[in-house]
Formats: sequence, C-alpha cells, structure tokens
Amino acid sequence: MKIFIQEIKENENVDSFFLVREKSSGLTKNGNIYLRLKLGDRSGEIEGRIWTFVETFSESFERDDFVHVKGKAVSFQGQLQISVNQIERVGEEGIELSDFFPKTEKNIDDMLKSLLEISQQVKNPYLHRLLHLFWEDNHFLERFKIAPASKWIHHNYLGGLLEHTLSIAELVLKNFSHYKGLNLDLLLAGSILHDLGKIDELSYRRSLDYSDEGRLLGHITLGIEMIEDKIRQVPDFPKALATIVKHLILSHHGQDIWGSPKKPMTLEAVMLHFLDDMDAKINGIQQFLKVQLPEGSKWSSYHRTFDQSFYISTGWEQLEPADKVAENEPEEAK
Amino acid sequence: MKIFIQEIKENENVDSFFLVREKSSGLTKNGNIYLRLKLGDRSGEIEGRIWTFVETFSESFERDDFVHVKGKAVSFQGQLQISVNQIERVGEEGIELSDFFPKTEKNIDDMLKSLLEISQQVKNPYLHRLLHLFWEDNHFLERFKIAPASKWIHHNYLGGLLEHTLSIAELVLKNFSHYKGLNLDLLLAGSILHDLGKIDELSYRRSLDYSDEGRLLGHITLGIEMIEDKIRQVPDFPKALATIVKHLILSHHGQDIWGSPKKPMTLEAVMLHFLDDMDAKINGIQQFLKVQLPEGSKWSSYHRTFDQSFYISTGWEQLEPADKVAENEPEEAK
Amino acid sequence: MKIFIQEIKENENVDSFFLVREKSSGLTKNGNIYLRLKLGDRSGEIEGRIWTFVETFSESFERDDFVHVKGKAVSFQGQLQISVNQIERVGEEGIELSDFFPKTEKNIDDMLKSLLEISQQVKNPYLHRLLHLFWEDNHFLERFKIAPASKWIHHNYLGGLLEHTLSIAELVLKNFSHYKGLNLDLLLAGSILHDLGKIDELSYRRSLDYSDEGRLLGHITLGIEMIEDKIRQVPDFPKALATIVKHLILSHHGQDIWGSPKKPMTLEAVMLHFLDDMDAKINGIQQFLKVQLPEGSKWSSYHRTFDQSFYISTGWEQLEPADKVAENEPEEAK
Amino acid sequence: MKIFIQEIKENENVDSFFLVREKSSGLTKNGNIYLRLKLGDRSGEIEGRIWTFVETFSESFERDDFVHVKGKAVSFQGQLQISVNQIERVGEEGIELSDFFPKTEKNIDDMLKSLLEISQQVKNPYLHRLLHLFWEDNHFLERFKIAPASKWIHHNYLGGLLEHTLSIAELVLKNFSHYKGLNLDLLLAGSILHDLGKIDELSYRRSLDYSDEGRLLGHITLGIEMIEDKIRQVPDFPKALATIVKHLILSHHGQDIWGSPKKPMTLEAVMLHFLDDMDAKINGIQQFLKVQLPEGSKWSSYHRTFDQSFYISTGWEQLEPADKVAENEPEEAK
Amino acid sequence: MKIFIQEIKENENVDSFFLVREKSSGLTKNGNIYLRLKLGDRSGEIEGRIWTFVETFSESFERDDFVHVKGKAVSFQGQLQISVNQIERVGEEGIELSDFFPKTEKNIDDMLKSLLEISQQVKNPYLHRLLHLFWEDNHFLERFKIAPASKWIHHNYLGGLLEHTLSIAELVLKNFSHYKGLNLDLLLAGSILHDLGKIDELSYRRSLDYSDEGRLLGHITLGIEMIEDKIRQVPDFPKALATIVKHLILSHHGQDIWGSPKKPMTLEAVMLHFLDDMDAKINGIQQFLKVQLPEGSKWSSYHRTFDQSFYISTGWEQLEPADKVAENEPEEAK
Amino acid sequence: MKIFIQEIKENENVDSFFLVREKSSGLTKNGNIYLRLKLGDRSGEIEGRIWTFVETFSESFERDDFVHVKGKAVSFQGQLQISVNQIERVGEEGIELSDFFPKTEKNIDDMLKSLLEISQQVKNPYLHRLLHLFWEDNHFLERFKIAPASKWIHHNYLGGLLEHTLSIAELVLKNFSHYKGLNLDLLLAGSILHDLGKIDELSYRRSLDYSDEGRLLGHITLGIEMIEDKIRQVPDFPKALATIVKHLILSHHGQDIWGSPKKPMTLEAVMLHFLDDMDAKINGIQQFLKVQLPEGSKWSSYHRTFDQSFYISTGWEQLEPADKVAENEPEEAK
Repeated sequence: MKIFIQEIKENENVDSFFLVREKSSGLTKNGNIYLRLKLGDRSGEIEGRIWTFVETFSESFERDDFVHVKGKAVSFQGQLQISVNQIERVGEEGIELSDFFPKTEKNIDDMLKSLLEISQQVKNPYLHRLLHLFWEDNHFLERFKIAPASKWIHHNYLGGLLEHTLSIAELVLKNFSHYKGLNLDLLLAGSILHDLGKIDELSYRRSLDYSDEGRLLGHITLGIEMIEDKIRQVPDFPKALATIVKHLILSHHGQDIWGSPKKPMTLEAVMLHFLDDMDAKINGIQQFLKVQLPEGSKWSSYHRTFDQSFYISTGWEQLEPADKVAENEPEEAK
Repeated sequence: MKIFIQEIKENENVDSFFLVREKSSGLTKNGNIYLRLKLGDRSGEIEGRIWTFVETFSESFERDDFVHVKGKAVSFQGQLQISVNQIERVGEEGIELSDFFPKTEKNIDDMLKSLLEISQQVKNPYLHRLLHLFWEDNHFLERFKIAPASKWIHHNYLGGLLEHTLSIAELVLKNFSHYKGLNLDLLLAGSILHDLGKIDELSYRRSLDYSDEGRLLGHITLGIEMIEDKIRQVPDFPKALATIVKHLILSHHGQDIWGSPKKPMTLEAVMLHFLDDMDAKINGIQQFLKVQLPEGSKWSSYHRTFDQSFYISTGWEQLEPADKVAENEPEEAK
Repeated sequence: MKIFIQEIKENENVDSFFLVREKSSGLTKNGNIYLRLKLGDRSGEIEGRIWTFVETFSESFERDDFVHVKGKAVSFQGQLQISVNQIERVGEEGIELSDFFPKTEKNIDDMLKSLLEISQQVKNPYLHRLLHLFWEDNHFLERFKIAPASKWIHHNYLGGLLEHTLSIAELVLKNFSHYKGLNLDLLLAGSILHDLGKIDELSYRRSLDYSDEGRLLGHITLGIEMIEDKIRQVPDFPKALATIVKHLILSHHGQDIWGSPKKPMTLEAVMLHFLDDMDAKINGIQQFLKVQLPEGSKWSSYHRTFDQSFYISTGWEQLEPADKVAENEPEEAK
Repeated sequence: MKIFIQEIKENENVDSFFLVREKSSGLTKNGNIYLRLKLGDRSGEIEGRIWTFVETFSESFERDDFVHVKGKAVSFQGQLQISVNQIERVGEEGIELSDFFPKTEKNIDDMLKSLLEISQQVKNPYLHRLLHLFWEDNHFLERFKIAPASKWIHHNYLGGLLEHTLSIAELVLKNFSHYKGLNLDLLLAGSILHDLGKIDELSYRRSLDYSDEGRLLGHITLGIEMIEDKIRQVPDFPKALATIVKHLILSHHGQDIWGSPKKPMTLEAVMLHFLDDMDAKINGIQQFLKVQLPEGSKWSSYHRTFDQSFYISTGWEQLEPADKVAENEPEEAK
Repeated sequence: MKIFIQEIKENENVDSFFLVREKSSGLTKNGNIYLRLKLGDRSGEIEGRIWTFVETFSESFERDDFVHVKGKAVSFQGQLQISVNQIERVGEEGIELSDFFPKTEKNIDDMLKSLLEISQQVKNPYLHRLLHLFWEDNHFLERFKIAPASKWIHHNYLGGLLEHTLSIAELVLKNFSHYKGLNLDLLLAGSILHDLGKIDELSYRRSLDYSDEGRLLGHITLGIEMIEDKIRQVPDFPKALATIVKHLILSHHGQDIWGSPKKPMTLEAVMLHFLDDMDAKINGIQQFLKVQLPEGSKWSSYHRTFDQSFYISTGWEQLEPADKVAENEPEEAK
Repeated sequence: MKIFIQEIKENENVDSFFLVREKSSGLTKNGNIYLRLKLGDRSGEIEGRIWTFVETFSESFERDDFVHVKGKAVSFQGQLQISVNQIERVGEEGIELSDFFPKTEKNIDDMLKSLLEISQQVKNPYLHRLLHLFWEDNHFLERFKIAPASKWIHHNYLGGLLEHTLSIAELVLKNFSHYKGLNLDLLLAGSILHDLGKIDELSYRRSLDYSDEGRLLGHITLGIEMIEDKIRQVPDFPKALATIVKHLILSHHGQDIWGSPKKPMTLEAVMLHFLDDMDAKINGIQQFLKVQLPEGSKWSSYHRTFDQSFYISTGWEQLEPADKVAENEPEEAK
C-alpha cells in the first residue's frame, strides 16, 4: 500500500513506492561513501540516506526510477529523512502514476467516452474519418488519456488535456448555434484536435516538464504534424479542408505574442480561440485559488503569469445591508 | 411613402423625407444665391439644389433637420441631384428613424421581452430590484431600445445595443453552469448592465456618432454612474455587492489597453469579459463581411480595427477530393 | 509613553502600545499552548510570546488590534523578542496613529487651511459650491486629512494625499498664467479633486494597504462617484461642466497603460496631468532616496516601479577643476 | 512691396518676391520649350509659366532661389497661375524671411534679451561661462534667433526655438523652488541648452525641413557636440559637471521610445523633462487648434502624432443650468 | 515579339501578349454591350475595349488568362487604351513568364547549380539525403526556380527565393568558422531549407500574391510540412535531428512578433536568424532604392514596412574638405 | 606567487595578493575591535579577519586596494576564512590584473596587431588618419587593450572590447563584398570605432562595473565625443563624412528600445548593426553556456537578458536512427 510522504512520521518504519528525483553520493566523516536521495510522490519530497551496501544498491536504480523503499523515518537537523535499509527498482506497471502526480478529479474513461460520442456528431466524412484515426490509435490514446494540458497554467495534472479537450467540445456544442453560419463539423474537429500536440510537448511519466521537442517546436507545430500524419491516411482528403483545419490549430492562441503566428481568420477559428482562452483561464484561476488563497482571505496571492490577483466574489449575500467599510471611519463619525 | 435615395431615377419627381446632412449657399454665374444641400437616408446620399425662394426656404430648416422635399431628379456632370421645389422641416414624430439609419434585423419588442424574462431569473433581491429600476424607467427604456452598440465595430445599427445585451445574457445562460462556483445572479446582472452607458456615449437621433460625454468619459464611466444612480434608490443595497457589480462593468474590456483600467478579478468578471469579447468580434466580423467581401472572393478586404482580413471557410464540402492548388503548378507537371 | 521597537534593549522591561500584525498559537515541547505575536509600530516589528494565561489573553484581542503590552525583552536565537506578561486591547482613541505609520513632516492643519484658501479663488459659482460641499463634509475631511497618496510610490505616509493635493494646487497657481487660454477655475477644481478617491482606495487605520474597493475599482472611479455625489447637491449644476470636471479626474494619469481610459483632451487636463505626474515622481524619488541611497554613494539602489536608479547631482561645486576620473587610468599614464 | 499669393486676383498684374519651390520644363503643342514653376510664400503656392526668353531666364535662377517676378495672373482650368514676363534671382538680403515662413508672434529681440537676463542668474562660474560663450558667438546667435523648434509638432515657426527655450527657462524659475534640493544653476543651464542642437537639425532658410545631419544624428547628439565644443573653451571645466549637464540634454525626452537613450536620473533632469514635455505639448495643441478646429466645433480634427482629438473646454459658463443633452431625448420624454 | 505596355504609342497597331487582370462588360449609349479589360505585363497596365463580336470573344478567355491581342492604341480622355480587334487565349507554354513579372537579374540555372554544389558539403548522411530528396523532386524544383521570396519586402521577383536561399548558404560558408562550435551541416541544411515553404505561400503564375494556404498557414508551417514529408522518405532519420532541423525553420524569424513562435535556441539557429534578417533587409533596401530614390536625392522616400527612409552614403569622397552646410548660414557670416 | 582563493585549504598558511572588496569593523565578545574583510580574486571571495594590531593595519589600506596578505585559513561555521597576521597595500604595478578579473583567452598584442593591419586597408585619407590618431594615442591604447565589452552580456572580461572589435572588423572583411555597393572604408571605420566609448563607460581596474559617465551618458555618446575629438585633429575632415561616421556609431544598436536613438539609415549602418548584434549574441551565449549549462544537460539555465534558455545542438550524430523519445511511451506500447 502506498504511504504518502506527508503521512510519514518520525521513528516509524517506511515501506512504500517513491520516485527518485535526485541521487548523489557523499562521504561520511569516517570516509565512507553513502547515497543521498531525494524521494518524491504526489504529496511532497523527502530526503533519503543509504548507509549500507551502498555500491550494490547504487547500481540497481537511477534517478527518475520508481523504487520500492524499506527503511525508517528519522529526524536530522529538524527535518525528517528516510534511513533506507532496502531499495529496489520497480517497473511502471507496478505503480499507480496518479500516486506520483496530481490527477484530474474526473473519471478518465467517462471523459473519453463522452468525447468519442461528441465526435460522432461530425458529419463530414473526411473530418469524421480523421478523428477516428486518432481514436483507433492505441499508442496515441494511452498518452492522450493521461497527458496534462500544461505544466503551470491550467489543467496541470494527469488527464488534464483530456479534461480540457472535452470541455472545449462541450462549450462548442453549447455556443455554436448562437450565431448563424458557423460550421459545427469544423468547430468540433478544431476543439478536439487543437491541443493534441501537448502529448509530446510535455513529459509526464517521470516528471511533469516540457520535452525537448516541446521546447524547440511547441505543441502547435507538433499537433499540426500529428494531424498531417493522419490526413495522409484518409484517401482523397480535400487539401482546402486540410488547410482550414490546420489553420484552426495554428491560430487558436489568438495572436503572435500568445504563440500563434497567424490570427484566427475564419469565424470558427475566432470562436475556438475565445472558448479555449476562457476555459484555460477559468480552470487556471480555479486551480490557483485551491492553493494560493490564504485562509480566510478574499484575495488570492499574486499570479505571475496572469500578472494579477483574484478576488472571491462570494459572501456578499450574507452582508448586512448598506454595510460601511468600517476601518477607515474616524472614531468621531461612528 | 418614403422613397429611398437609391431608388431615385433621373427625370422623375421626388416627394419624400430626408435628413439634411449639409447645407451651404453658393452664387450662380448670374450672381444669384442658391442653396446646396446634402440629403441623406439609410440608403445613401444625394445632392440637392434650391434655386427659388432661397431665403424663405433657408430660414425654415437647418442642418440635421428632417425635411419633406418635393422636387425633380436631374443629372449634373454625370451625377443625380434633386432640384428642390418645396422643402419643409418635419418633427421626429413624423418620420421613421429606421428609414434613416441601419437597424437591427430582429424585432426590438421581442428582444426586450426576452431580456426582461431573463432578468426574472435573478434571485438576489438587491440585484433583482436594481435591474427592475431600469425596466421601470421609461426614459431609459426608450433610448435603450434604439441605441446602437458602437459606431463602427459591432452591432453598429439601431437596436444593436439591445441585441448585443440580450446575446450576452443568453450566452451566460448557456455557459455559466459549465464551471462550478460561478454566480448566475452576478453574471446576469453584469451581462445586462455592462454596456448601458452606450445610450449616452453615442448620439443616434440625427447621426450615428459619439457624444461629447462619450468622447470625454466613455460608456464604462457613464454606465457606472447610471448604475450608482439606481443603486441609491434600492434601500439597503449592500456596499460590497455594489462594488462587485461595478467591477464587472469596469473590467469587462479585459485590460487597460482595451479600455478597462482594472483587469477582471472575479470569475464572473473573467467569463463576462470573454463572452462580451467573443460576441462583439463575431458580430463585428459578420457585419463587415456583409459589405466588405468582394463578390466571388473568399477573402474580405482589410479590417482596420482588427488589423487583418477574414476568410470564408465554406465551400470545401463541394471540393473535389485532394484538390490541388492548380495555379502554381508548372505546365509540365500537370 | 510610547517606546518604539527600535529603542527596545535586551533584558529591559517593555511597557508600551503596539499594533498586532500577526497572531497564532504554538505548542511547547511540553505540549502547552503559547501565543506567537508579531507586534509593530512605525519603527519596525518585533516578535512577542505569551506563555501564561494564554487562553484568557487570547480572547481579549485580535490581529489588527492596538494593544497595551507589558513584558520583558529577551534574546532568542540572536533576535530580540518580548516575553509578554500582560496584554490588553486599546481603542483607537487611546493611541496616536502617527506612532504606527509614517506621517507627513508638514503640519496637516496648516496645509488644509492653505488648500481652503486656494479654493476661495475659484470664481465659478458651481465649482465653488462643489468644492465647499467637500470642505463642509466632516466625515470626508477627517479621512482626507490623514489619507496617504499611495502605498509605495509617492507621498506614502499619513497626510500624504493632502500634501500632494496642496502641492498640485500651488503648482497650478504658479503655472496656469504661463499660457493663454487656460481656465483657472477648472485647473484648481481639477487639482483639488483629482485624487480624492484615494481616501477609499487605501486603508490606513490598521495597516497601509489597498482596500477591496480600491483594488476592484481604483481611486479614479471612486473619485468620480464622490464628485457626482456632491454635484447632485448643487442645484442646477450644468451637465457639460460636470462632464468637463469628471474628464479632468478620469484622464489625469495621461494614458490607458497608466490607468486613464481616456487621454487628456482639454488644455486644462493636459496641464493637470503633467503637474500631477511631475509632483508624484519628484516626491517619489525624494522619498526613495531617503531610504535607498547607500551611505557615501551618489547612486541610489534600483527603483522597481521606475525601473531605474537615481543619481545625486550635487557635490560637483567642490570638485577640482577638470578632475580626471582616476580609476581607469593606467599607472604609466599618470 | 510683398504681395502675398492669397491676395493675387485673376487678370491683375503681379510684381512681388517669391520662393521657387519647383522648376521644370515642358513642351508646348507647337514644340516650344516653356518653364513650369511652383512659386511659394507664407500664404500658399501658385503655378508660374514662362513662355518667352525661356533659356535666358532658365539660367538665371534655380529651385530654392528667391526671385523677383513680374507677370499677370491668369486662370487655367479653373486655377490661377502667373504668366511670367520677367524673373530675377534676389539675394537673401533683399527679402524678409518671415514673408516666406510662419514666424513667432513674439518679439525676437525681446525674447533674447529676457533669456540673457535669466542666464545672469546662473551663479556657478563654469556654467555661467559656458552659457556666455554661446551668447558671444554671433554665428550661433543669428541662427538661434530664427530657428524653429520643430517641423510639425510644436513651435514650428521662425523664432520658435527661442520662444520654447525662453518658455522653459521661465517655467524653471516658477517651479524650481517648489521642491527642496533642486539646483537652479543646473536647471537654468539645462533649460537653455536642451534643444540647441535644433539650429542644425532643421534647415529653415529655404524650406522648413530636417537637414541631413538632423536626420542622421538628431538634435540631442548635435547639441551635446555643440556644448562639448564650448566646454573645451572654459578653462578647468569640471568633468563631473560636464557629464551632469550633458545628461540633462541626453535625457530630456524622458525615455528611449521618445528619443532619449538614457532616462532622467537626476532630480533636475526629471523636472526639465516634465517642463519641456508640457511646454511642447501645450504649444503644439494650441498651434494645432488654430488651424484644425472646424468652425463652430468644440472638437479639433484628429492629431496624428498625438493620436487623439482635442476638446475646447470653454463656453460652459454660459450654459443654462442642468442643461440636458437634448439630441438623444426621445420625443415623448420631452 | 512581345511589345511592352510602356512602349505602346498612340495610333499605332498593337500585336502582343498580355495578362487579363480585369474583365467586365458595359453598355454603350446605344445600348450595345462592350467589354472592358485591364491588360497587364511587367511594364504596366493598359485599358482594353472590345466593341465587336463581344459575345464570341467574351466566352473565349477569362480573367487571369494570358491572351494574344491585336488592336490599335487610341487615346480616350487623355489616356491610352487598346481598341481590340482580335483576342485569343494562349497557354502558359506560349509565353515567357518574365515578360509579365519582374525577374532576378542573375542566371537561375547557375544559381541552382551553385546551391547543389554547396549542398554537397553537407557530410551528415541523413541531412545530405534530405537535401537531395528535394533536388530529385522535379515538381518541387520547377517551382523553387521561379518562386519569389516575398510580395513586397525583399527578393520580390521571379527567382528571388532561389537567389535569397543561395545568398544565405554563401553567407553561412563565409561566417560559420568565425566562431567555434557551430555545426556546418546544420547551418547549410537550415539555410537551404529555411524558406522553402514560400513556393506554396505565394502564387506567382498569374499574379504575385499570397495563396490561401500562405495566408492561413504561412511559409514556416508549410515548410516544416514539406521537410517532414521528405524526412519520412529517409530511412532511420534520427528524431532528435529532425527536431533540431525543424527548430531552425520555425525560429528563423527570431521572435514571436516577427512570426516565429519559438526564439532561436541553438547557436546555429541564432546565426541563421541574423544572416537571414541581414540578407532580407539589405536586398529589400536595395530593391526599394531602385524605385523610391527621387532623382538627385540622397534620401529615399518613406518605407512603410521598415518605418523609415534610407540615406545614400556615397559621394562624400568628392566633397570639399570641411564643407560647411551652407544653407543655414546667415548672410553676414559668409 | 599568486594563490587563488579556490585553492586555499583549511589549516594551511596563506601568502598572496587579494583585492579588498569590503572592509568593516566589529566588536568581539570581550569588547575588542576587529576587522572584517571580504577578499577577492578571479576565482572567488573569502572572508578575512584581523584580530591584532587592528588600528595600525586599518589605516594602511582601504576598500578597493590590492593587498598582500599573510595569514592562516581556518574554518568558522563551516566556511573558510583567513585569519590575517599581516596585511599591506600594494600598488597596481605589483599585481597582475588578470589574476583578479576574468580575461580574454586570446593574446591581446596579437589581436591589436591584427586590428592595426586591418585598419591599413582603409583607403580614404581622412578615415585612415582618424583611425591612426587612435592608434597613436597611448593613453587610449592602454585602456582599449584591457577594457571589457560589457559587464554581463558578452565579452565580459578584460580584453573583451578588443576581441569584439577585431571580431566585427573580420566579419566585415568576410561579408562586405557579398553585396554590391557597400563601402569598405566606412564599414571598417565603423566596426573599429563603434564601441570605443566603452573604455569610459565601464570601470575595470578595481571592479567590473559601470562608471558614472557610463550610466549617465552611455558608450554611444561617449564614443561620438571621442571620435569628434580626433576628427578635430584631422585637417579638412569633410563634415558630411563625419556625420556619416557618427551615424554608424549612433545607430549600431538598431533601434531606440535597444539604445540607438536613430535607426541605421545607410547600407553600411544596416550591415554593421547586424554583424555587431550577431557577434555580441553568439559570444554572449557561449560565455553563458560555460557557466550555466548544468552538467550532463542539453539545456542551459534561464538567461535573464535574452529571456530564454539555450539548447546544445550536438550529440545527434551519435543518436541511433529514428530513436524514439522513450519516456512518454506507455508500457504496453513498448
């Protein structure tokens, strides 16, 4: 059973799985080699020390491995660390990824099912086929189901990409008929495909970070390549349609300073951009408020990317009528 | 019966109402004074000339008056003009404003009714009362029903403000439940109130333009004053709630360079900003395409404010499969 | 008698008033509860500990209360803290606000008197009446006399708003006649009213910070509401004049990225903007230099908001003629 | 006697001085050469034609020469032109420059005298000497007295540089004592020297335009060179003082995007920047309003450089109390 | 033989090839239909009129066709037009493209040969193979040889893309060894591939303009797709190398506001960006100066994209020593 | 012999030269005065303590002096410090500057010789003379040989300015003939002179920092003054040529936000800007990678000024073909 780092108590035995985030060696005062580890899971990080059988253990695992650790929690200079007695590399099949990274609160299989159902609504045969080539690609599906949508800003947890994608598709269904002349097939295809490149932009099996590909090319370019790869497999896919779909992907960030070298030029691209931006921002704020709202405060801490703080607009229903902001009142006026 | 300027034909008699857009006098070669007019209606502009009874007629109307004109259409240097025999000022009650300015294609009374019904959904008694103070204000209502939402960019026609306001309220109803924790009362109040200041920012009884107030203060400040004016009439309106509502108005443009000195800081303000921006832009593009899409082209002309052109993403359904863009093909490759 | 935190010495008794900035509880090694306080005054902050009668004392005061503390200064891990024997909440009437916050070096009553005299020079009866409605409003006056002009940038001390307002009014008197055609009444009214909203934008009775209203609406919007509130009390106040006065307030930051959604569009608004900007910046630099000029240096530290350092341009009178900057001289060149 | 172009009437004889702005030759239908001229003065431009003695006349003057023209005003295709009978180059000594370019309305000698008197207030011997080296330089003085301060934006007329310089110096005298710790000598020297480079940045003897030097280096660099040139002539001028003075010149535009590669870093430089900016803008607006305020309008046309229009804030004194903006009022509400 | 439009003279017969740029019909005063054409070639445009056999001719060609025209040049309202007697569509094989568009002054085949030789220097087998897949693709080659590099800014003529590509490759050879540690293979591959997408971004067989693909996706995305298409054909092409090469293409504009969503992150990408930017700008200036340098002037007209004018820095060798800029000299100083 | 701070070991004697970076006094627990020093050299910093003869030693040296220190390395709270027994000020002639600051890896005399040879290629007699006036100025030469090119960004070591200058001159020789019409004399003069002002902008004899002059005026203005100073010594130097040369210096940063108040307006200025920018950036990246590339990583840390990280594009030659990025692969797909 997984014991989380936040649950470990001084002087208790530890027997659980962790991710090796750092690994280095040191010298004791007596000149013996020991191993310094940083062990992590979803709940935090803890130091580990291996004092015995150092060489044997050292060869049996590396940084970024999952390991099965047996040892004891001791306190050193006021901080807990694990004095490791046994350590053993375990394959990914033996662990539960969501023990190590934050994960969507929604059910992944349910979300995927909903998305597949929505994609059934696409009538155009070429777009319909394009989407199903993704659904038939198990290699893709496995990654799409767990990928996060970003490292920091929004849907930054396992399954976040799927959650965000489904959310946009649902928003499309709610909004497309509000205006005349918008093509539902394009909007659905665009919403489902717009962030696919993120399965390669981020790495999320050992740590939540950006991959080399992601940093050098970005998810927009990676996504367009993935789409082109599938389009080649659709016989007679109209070239003009391919251009319009790729334009939806390329332009969905809205403008160059936000990462899209082309502005949205079709009505569908304009709507997709707004829905994507709104969904990312609202989720981003809600995730941020979960951890960055000081207890009892109505103001969040400062959000670096959004360059502002946020205010909790609840509680006014209980306010007394015409309440005065008392603090600035001079005494004699009360 | 109104005869529109576009319908006037050479050598026919003219008997209709027009708006006097310019009025000046000239000298004939014989040294007689005549009047040069520019007459307008919704369909365009035409020159007018008064050669007889010049002084009498000249005193009877001014620029920006509506007039009843009788005369004859003649051609001068290849252009039609009206040789005016009789001209008479008429009050606004005698004319139909929508003959002179473009007007929403939707039914104004229906839209207003829908908006009133939506505002019934506001449960909070203070917000409910605030909205109804506007609905009970006939002076306000009369202007709200015909005001445009802007001069150029979007909903730039009589009734445009009401159309845009209703559209945002409907979008709120479609989207608010997509996220947890958003307050419907605030969103509905914000959507209904956000652009009210435009009834004073623009002048639209003689020409569609910005008023002095509009240019010096803007619709956001004007709107907050209008709301404050009503809030004073609601007994015990909570001050904190008033602040939150005004923040919705103040921040709905999203950031300083778009006219909002404060960014949206509450979740409701964030959603309102995105829905407003999306609605304004999509309507703006659709209005633009009506007049700025060259016949047979898939590309609009250049839109100065949006700094781009737009592309019509229809027609690809009929495209032959895998159509090649033929134009760049060298002959020998065909 | 107030003993300031900077004056407290190890092992001496302490008997003075402080502001409770933080309050939390901890557990001793023996499992007893104690209270951890952060106590502050104008001169700094000091830790406080309550080891006895913890529950009784804990209920008798809260964070942001002023308290009367008796105890002893002891050293813990190299830092002074007060071991509190007695603590008692005191009302605001028992303390001197300026013991807890920095305060203008000028005499507040003298400054107010000067400002009232200047406002006598306003000849237009409507503007004259408008200003005097503020002077007759004791509730307003009490706050106006102590409000700071900002938290960080300039006049960031009790009385700073009054000092800044008077300074602008005096600058107006010095400069208005330098150009033809500027209206003194408008300039004086604008200078006196331009920052009034700051009395609500900032809170300054318990801590110097921005209020909820201030963060959500800003002093410009708050100020315009305050002015509109008084204008309603002036019979027959001309609407065009009200618009011009509000424009002075709205535009005084000069452009959107500095917080004014409208640029100054009248000559008076242009001059008011420059004088306000100059006064804020010069005061801001002078305040900054008081604390951020390393001893013996001619260069200040880096000013984050202004994004630069400042140089003291004095001392050159004593420089020897044609002094060479010696440091870069190679030895053989000397 | 100078006859201005605006005064010329059809069929009258012309005998006056003009500036040759363009000069080219054409062929008559009969194959004869004639000369086409564009002649200008302060009041406008007129075409000129020379049909006789073409070769002789053509060799006797060039473009940008002042000429004495005798001829007759005739009408050709609805426009006046001068049929030239005699034309003769005249030296600059024979003409009055202000007949050809707009000129300050103030007395140049009076302004210069005032500026010299102000420069007497500079106490520091080095700065005092520096300024007087300019006053003793006749070559400099002659140009300084007539140079404009810019081509378009402000003080864009002969004598404008002197007028602007004196204005800044007077503003310094009015404002410097408002703050403690500002050095009057530096402020006066800075105000007098800050724009001197404009005597070379602009050319203004034949046309009001930027010189090659002006376009390639700009008046700030040119001015610093002029000051350095004089500083070399002041024995023992302290190097640190020279740096501070040059910094005043270099930084007076305030920031890089306005042309100053260094921000103002001393208090004197900060004040000089604000006074210069205010003076340039107020004069610029006033000049603009003289020509760009449509008759009877309270709104100027659009000012390209300032990117806005301006509003005339006068006339409200005469407004009826509580005047309503009538135009938006629905009929039934009146 | 091609007769160019600029060579056509009044009353002469015309027998030549043109491009039909516009085609519409009109009614004569007698109510007969006629055709209005705009005919173009490299040298300009001319109106054409077809008065006879209108229906027959009208069906035989369309806008954007090349046509063989026989007719006569007549003058109408001061402008030449061709009264067409015979008109016949001709295929592209019958015309010389460079008669209709400006073309590089260099020899296309020589340039291509040089580029092929340079690409031989690429040692890495994967990159070597990648490049040669392009050289072996005749369909690609035919377009690459004639494509322009842009519509307006630089190398805006047939063959311009090849000329620019070769230029960058040569610059790489001249500069790469100036720094240690730069990889020549990457730099050569990057320089040759960086703008390939322009063969589809622009259309240049009937008019020099941007294609739909070009406007919706841009040459960077189009180029990456072309490269990916060839990479698929190289067995075992290393994925990391593919990423690095694509990054060179993606980042070569340097930053987001110039069209690259990723900044150059490798040393090779940094150098490629600078060489490309320098080459584009220098060619762009030189092309601009050819047409926008007023005769006898040292200053070009204003270049909208570069937002500046350019100065010809020649001629100073012949200047007299210490020449004074005479124009600003007052008379008495000469 | 110099012992570097990084080489000092606990309990060993120290006898070497250091730079005094800080100097202050403290009180021992017994109430005796001691001196606290921060001693530095090229390899780092170390604390020093003087416990004996404090007053005598204290008077014999100051901060920023070079000193000869004898003492012993002891450990205090885990950090090495020198317990100083003897300390003595030494003149600059006794030390080797490069022991205290990082220095170019190239041979300074060789670089200077190369630069002199290149300057021989300048044919224009005025430019040739101008350059040689610098070479004949020993005072200049001594500083030019050791000045760094910047504090942080590039060539930030002794000799860096010379290295950068030579690099640009060599780049000019490699690139100038690539385009027609560029003047080699101007380009060589521009490359050699463009950054000369840095010898005064930075101070680099006691610490590597910006001088007062450098901060207040900047190297561009300082450089133009230095050039003007030499130009005065060249008889009959053409004024137009002087303007063109100064424009090269003034504009070499490319645009206002990068520090050049004028954009490059001549072809030579455009090329000089690109070569300078490329050289600074590539050197800057390479210097940065030396210290900011985590071992074993292909990604540098974040570069604040360039606002990005850099990627090492080597190692792909050894990659297995078509290597998959394994980390994101789900287990079942492997």
